[in-house]
Amino acid sequence: MENGPTLGVGMVGHAFMGRVHSQAWRNVSAFFDLPVRPVMAALSGLSRERAAAAADSLGWATSESDWRELLKRDDIHIIDICTPGDTHAEIAIAALEAGKHVLCEKPLANSVAEAEAMAEAARDAAPLGIRNMAAFNYRRVPAVAYARSLVAAGRLGEIRHIRAQYLQDWIVDPEHPLVWRLRKDKAGSGALGDIGAHIIDTAQFVSGQSITGVSGLSTTFIPVRPLPDGSGHGEVTVDDAALFLARLDGGAIASFEATRFATGRKNSLRLEINGSLGSLAFDFEAMNELEFHDHTLPGAESGFRRVLVTEADHPYAGAWWPPGHGLGYEHTFTHQIRDFLAAISENRDPAPSFTDGLHVQRVIDAVERSAATESRWTPVAA
Amino acid sequence: MENGPTLGVGMVGHAFMGRVHSQAWRNVSAFFDLPVRPVMAALSGLSRERAAAAADSLGWATSESDWRELLKRDDIHIIDICTPGDTHAEIAIAALEAGKHVLCEKPLANSVAEAEAMAEAARDAAPLGIRNMAAFNYRRVPAVAYARSLVAAGRLGEIRHIRAQYLQDWIVDPEHPLVWRLRKDKAGSGALGDIGAHIIDTAQFVSGQSITGVSGLSTTFIPVRPLPDGSGHGEVTVDDAALFLARLDGGAIASFEATRFATGRKNSLRLEINGSLGSLAFDFEAMNELEFHDHTLPGAESGFRRVLVTEADHPYAGAWWPPGHGLGYEHTFTHQIRDFLAAISENRDPAPSFTDGLHVQRVIDAVERSAATESRWTPVAA
Amino acid sequence: MENGPTLGVGMVGHAFMGRVHSQAWRNVSAFFDLPVRPVMAALSGLSRERAAAAADSLGWATSESDWRELLKRDDIHIIDICTPGDTHAEIAIAALEAGKHVLCEKPLANSVAEAEAMAEAARDAAPLGIRNMAAFNYRRVPAVAYARSLVAAGRLGEIRHIRAQYLQDWIVDPEHPLVWRLRKDKAGSGALGDIGAHIIDTAQFVSGQSITGVSGLSTTFIPVRPLPDGSGHGEVTVDDAALFLARLDGGAIASFEATRFATGRKNSLRLEINGSLGSLAFDFEAMNELEFHDHTLPGAESGFRRVLVTEADHPYAGAWWPPGHGLGYEHTFTHQIRDFLAAISENRDPAPSFTDGLHVQRVIDAVERSAATESRWTPVAA
Amino acid sequence: MENGPTLGVGMVGHAFMGRVHSQAWRNVSAFFDLPVRPVMAALSGLSRERAAAAADSLGWATSESDWRELLKRDDIHIIDICTPGDTHAEIAIAALEAGKHVLCEKPLANSVAEAEAMAEAARDAAPLGIRNMAAFNYRRVPAVAYARSLVAAGRLGEIRHIRAQYLQDWIVDPEHPLVWRLRKDKAGSGALGDIGAHIIDTAQFVSGQSITGVSGLSTTFIPVRPLPDGSGHGEVTVDDAALFLARLDGGAIASFEATRFATGRKNSLRLEINGSLGSLAFDFEAMNELEFHDHTLPGAESGFRRVLVTEADHPYAGAWWPPGHGLGYEHTFTHQIRDFLAAISENRDPAPSFTDGLHVQRVIDAVERSAATESRWTPVAA
Repeated sequence: MENGPTLGVGMVGHAFMGRVHSQAWRNVSAFFDLPVRPVMAALSGLSRERAAAAADSLGWATSESDWRELLKRDDIHIIDICTPGDTHAEIAIAALEAGKHVLCEKPLANSVAEAEAMAEAARDAAPLGIRNMAAFNYRRVPAVAYARSLVAAGRLGEIRHIRAQYLQDWIVDPEHPLVWRLRKDKAGSGALGDIGAHIIDTAQFVSGQSITGVSGLSTTFIPVRPLPDGSGHGEVTVDDAALFLARLDGGAIASFEATRFATGRKNSLRLEINGSLGSLAFDFEAMNELEFHDHTLPGAESGFRRVLVTEADHPYAGAWWPPGHGLGYEHTFTHQIRDFLAAISENRDPAPSFTDGLHVQRVIDAVERSAATESRWTPVAA
Repeated sequence: MENGPTLGVGMVGHAFMGRVHSQAWRNVSAFFDLPVRPVMAALSGLSRERAAAAADSLGWATSESDWRELLKRDDIHIIDICTPGDTHAEIAIAALEAGKHVLCEKPLANSVAEAEAMAEAARDAAPLGIRNMAAFNYRRVPAVAYARSLVAAGRLGEIRHIRAQYLQDWIVDPEHPLVWRLRKDKAGSGALGDIGAHIIDTAQFVSGQSITGVSGLSTTFIPVRPLPDGSGHGEVTVDDAALFLARLDGGAIASFEATRFATGRKNSLRLEINGSLGSLAFDFEAMNELEFHDHTLPGAESGFRRVLVTEADHPYAGAWWPPGHGLGYEHTFTHQIRDFLAAISENRDPAPSFTDGLHVQRVIDAVERSAATESRWTPVAA
Repeated sequence: MENGPTLGVGMVGHAFMGRVHSQAWRNVSAFFDLPVRPVMAALSGLSRERAAAAADSLGWATSESDWRELLKRDDIHIIDICTPGDTHAEIAIAALEAGKHVLCEKPLANSVAEAEAMAEAARDAAPLGIRNMAAFNYRRVPAVAYARSLVAAGRLGEIRHIRAQYLQDWIVDPEHPLVWRLRKDKAGSGALGDIGAHIIDTAQFVSGQSITGVSGLSTTFIPVRPLPDGSGHGEVTVDDAALFLARLDGGAIASFEATRFATGRKNSLRLEINGSLGSLAFDFEAMNELEFHDHTLPGAESGFRRVLVTEADHPYAGAWWPPGHGLGYEHTFTHQIRDFLAAISENRDPAPSFTDGLHVQRVIDAVERSAATESRWTPVAA
Repeated sequence: MENGPTLGVGMVGHAFMGRVHSQAWRNVSAFFDLPVRPVMAALSGLSRERAAAAADSLGWATSESDWRELLKRDDIHIIDICTPGDTHAEIAIAALEAGKHVLCEKPLANSVAEAEAMAEAARDAAPLGIRNMAAFNYRRVPAVAYARSLVAAGRLGEIRHIRAQYLQDWIVDPEHPLVWRLRKDKAGSGALGDIGAHIIDTAQFVSGQSITGVSGLSTTFIPVRPLPDGSGHGEVTVDDAALFLARLDGGAIASFEATRFATGRKNSLRLEINGSLGSLAFDFEAMNELEFHDHTLPGAESGFRRVLVTEADHPYAGAWWPPGHGLGYEHTFTHQIRDFLAAISENRDPAPSFTDGLHVQRVIDAVERSAATESRWTPVAA
């Protein structure tokens, strides 16, 4: 497949994730000077009417009611998958086989087996220049990308501790209905797979280390909830919260926590890393800030400094506004698409790949198996 | 002028402000359900080539090299003025006379006389349904709008104190060149007019009180700087920093400070208000947060609470992402255009109007006159 | 033993803990109106000269070079044990048998067996009116005591999550010598027993729940260090850091972390609790503050509020200074002695008791056993 | 007067200030190794009974019902004045003439004339080795002293901006009685003299610059209050709040604010300084922290760092506890007495002197005169 000056995009799904991906496709070219320009060719959704309305509102030229139609179109070179996890494997594998570059929302799949099949399909397509990317958007927060650059430059020295938490509170109310994210058949996993996947990826990305084993614990505080259609009650089949301890291949030890019951925390993706030469702390609720402690400074004048990650030489930030003029949640997706398009146009593999997404899936699986066997230490396949 | 389902927009200027206004025009319809939809018809700039390139990159259908051409076009119903202050009066008055709705960047003008002429032109056009708006975008930060709603609901009681600061540091380096913002003929004023104008408007908006008199002080720390073209040095003809005390018509006393020499502060628009029943604190560097102290709670459990202004029932926030998923600088402009379009479509005057902008200009003028006469108390015309 | 208007105190040990306990004994009566007044009768230390010098500097009337001498004196009614953990059992048991009230530094002992013997001796002495107390001073931070009162009043509802961390960084440097705290024979345990003991007690105290099982992980990052006397190197025989997951008897799940390798964190005892109706967050590095989120308020105005715990009706605070005039580390010890003396004078048992200290020891022991057996879930005896 | 190994102290007044001074006298020798040791010889108070009870509770050996008795005693070498401002001049001058070293609470006096007389008496006594000190205790917060050392070392470069605020809220309630601090005859001034005096001294101390002129504004929000004895209402004769702008002799411009109506702020003495090379920010409500921005670091990694001022090489801190174990309000007084005793024993003048206190009084006076004459610029005598 040749990459011309424009690349047609077909997006599958137009709920929350579809809206935010659309915003990114619509604006990426106005801020980033890329050799290719995406064309928002078509959106697909299960309902023809709602898909058409969404396409109109979100800026897509056309709409389809079956994602398979997108694969048949010659004007579409990229498939962007924004549907729940149970559909990812089928769509992604078909798209790759149809010669389309694929960007897929996280978690990559609802099981390790599905994720393995996806990663294999991605490996098969790679020699043909077909690219794949798993959508762990938090890597593209400027503060997170800058944190990674500090670690990569050795500014933290040897990393000893990682604390990663993703705290939300949207289902604290027992009357919150049994939405699809609370059903194992649709979502695969609960807090662990939904938001735990993000901190697994982010912690590994920033530290540059890979999780080798875990000890896990999970719970479902509210096991029965009202059905969304008001027809009664149903069982919550996923975890409300999951905690695990981990060791990483670079010698760090870590604790992870994902919960939807941290009252007062709305979208608190927190990461704290301590190394022999310095430390970092981040909270997505203050996403334009990174706290950095440089332990090589004289002790009397050292401390965690609040770096406003909005300078022209910070990752991504220079493309936007002057220092101190912060970005928001959606920008992480614009940066993701920028990096995806840049990789495609430069004929290299984007990161994180499906293989990276598979590894996250393996960590999730190991945590679930450990939690099911008295928190016993469970290795994670490399 | 009839408002159809679409309204053509012509934007004058395509530098920093033009870029951020374009982002707002491009996205407003995807998030806000408005009876009218803006069409990005044309952009004008002094250089034909650069205007054309900017139009292409920013999403404008056509470009012009003279703003007067925009006024002649029937497909353009709105003029959006993003040029330096010395051009505002001429363009705005001509646009109003041509029957175009006008959105004008702040400060409204470079002098009270110009601002008065603009306000008069706006008043003349109003009976014809022609709308005017001064672009004080910080009113549209959700946290600032929410602060206003708390005050309006009486949650602060009688307001006694206002502390308003706008702190930047971009010209601390004496080698920073003598850009147009440092020249009185182009910018009218320095820190006072550029960023001081914002805190004057924001403080009055949130408190609901109007400044009646001031005592001012201003200074230029670095009076000579290199010319941008490298041809030597020139005189800085505006203030580097300005401070003033004020009284407001509701009984509050206030201090204001605008500076470009607050090392380490990048875009710190800070507002703190103390009332008999509560207090508020805001800093744009953490724009998604509002600190609120409710003094009616029992003393032992009260304190400033950090409200993450991202809930569905916060101003503007519900149109975007779930709780805890913050917005950025540019969103304030999207909200501004949303409110401008809503007012036009509902046949009412948007706020802040040119008359409001004139009042800000009068405050600036009073500060400058006070600073020139030993800080003597100087009343501000209502 | 009758409690007269004064009670003689004998303190064992005069290093760091002895200094801070002395400060508390010296000042408690000036701020708290108690029915008994302590008399600083004697201090004992291994070196006669240094004990005498310490007594003079710290305000003790006399000194002894053997703690057994303190037990023989009729003018001494209270023994305050400030020595390393390996000596606690012998001194405490002998003191209780000699009819002295005993305040003992934490961890209560270096092993469960020792702690059991101490708790048994305390139970034997109780019918005679002899009191015992384990010195978990962080319970007496006003913010921590206030946190407990909020939980006890039901303000947090059903507690789901506890995050407890005690982060220090004083041995990050590999050249830091092998001091007694890094030797198992003296200290019993490393970060886990030294500072982990504090967060175990504090988390249980505030939540009102007791740990029933754990999954642990510990590590020694730097296994060999220089000997303090410069005579070569020796092995570190304790943990540098320990992490564990826990379940509590009220249904909460928790993560704990104790480390001396969190670069940039000096004495960061952090506790965060999420309940169905509210949340709390505390960090000893800002010890006069408690963050409280009241989830029963309307969502739009809720958020973590920073309560300055210095009001007259906050625990302990009213005895000191006006609101906003904070306290320091040492005050927690003054409060501890106040509570100890109050309990003695009112003929009731102080809290936490030796039995409470034994439970903490059992948690530590369970963590160590779990860490030694692949993090397997390990129940904690009640 | 010869300074032996001990120095007798006589304290005048035993209300709030007397309590905190007593705590300092009682503990200074246990933490600081000084060539002289203070002996708490006597306390004087208007009521013989209450003075005796206070002496017993606060640790003073004897008590007197007339401060003149203290001057007659040979065993008293130091007079510590803790009474309201209207008595300072008489006591201090008499004490100096009686050959006693004098430590006097702030504000030094209730008028410039009184302060001048005190400074003159101090100058007359100096050749005899009699020392004087004004009790601006906030200089002795470790974070404030460290801030001064950073400025003195040139780390901030040329200082441009000072923002100094002292915010309290204890008289927001209109039913708060008309206590002596609200009466001009006793207190001399309101918020300006009481807490404004502190920020004037602190700002000048840290910046190393002296105020040369001011423009002031003050107000009394609640002019009539209930009398403390319940006998009716009386007029508030002092300011509730005062604001002023200032210029300093080193080129800085500044804003100052003192108020007792900042709802939610309990004892928020805030200082922010911006220089060409760096900035500082401090708030007494978090007294163990100093925020420092080093503008010489690369922009991408710079930001305000939170320095926990508890390291062994921070001012005063090394005498107390390990890093991260904070101090409280009272410690500032212990440090003050340490410095006072050190100066006496080393035969040099302590700082701040009565002359420094006189300068603060002159600033207060200039602010009051400016506020009374339309905020006109008012020079301050050097």
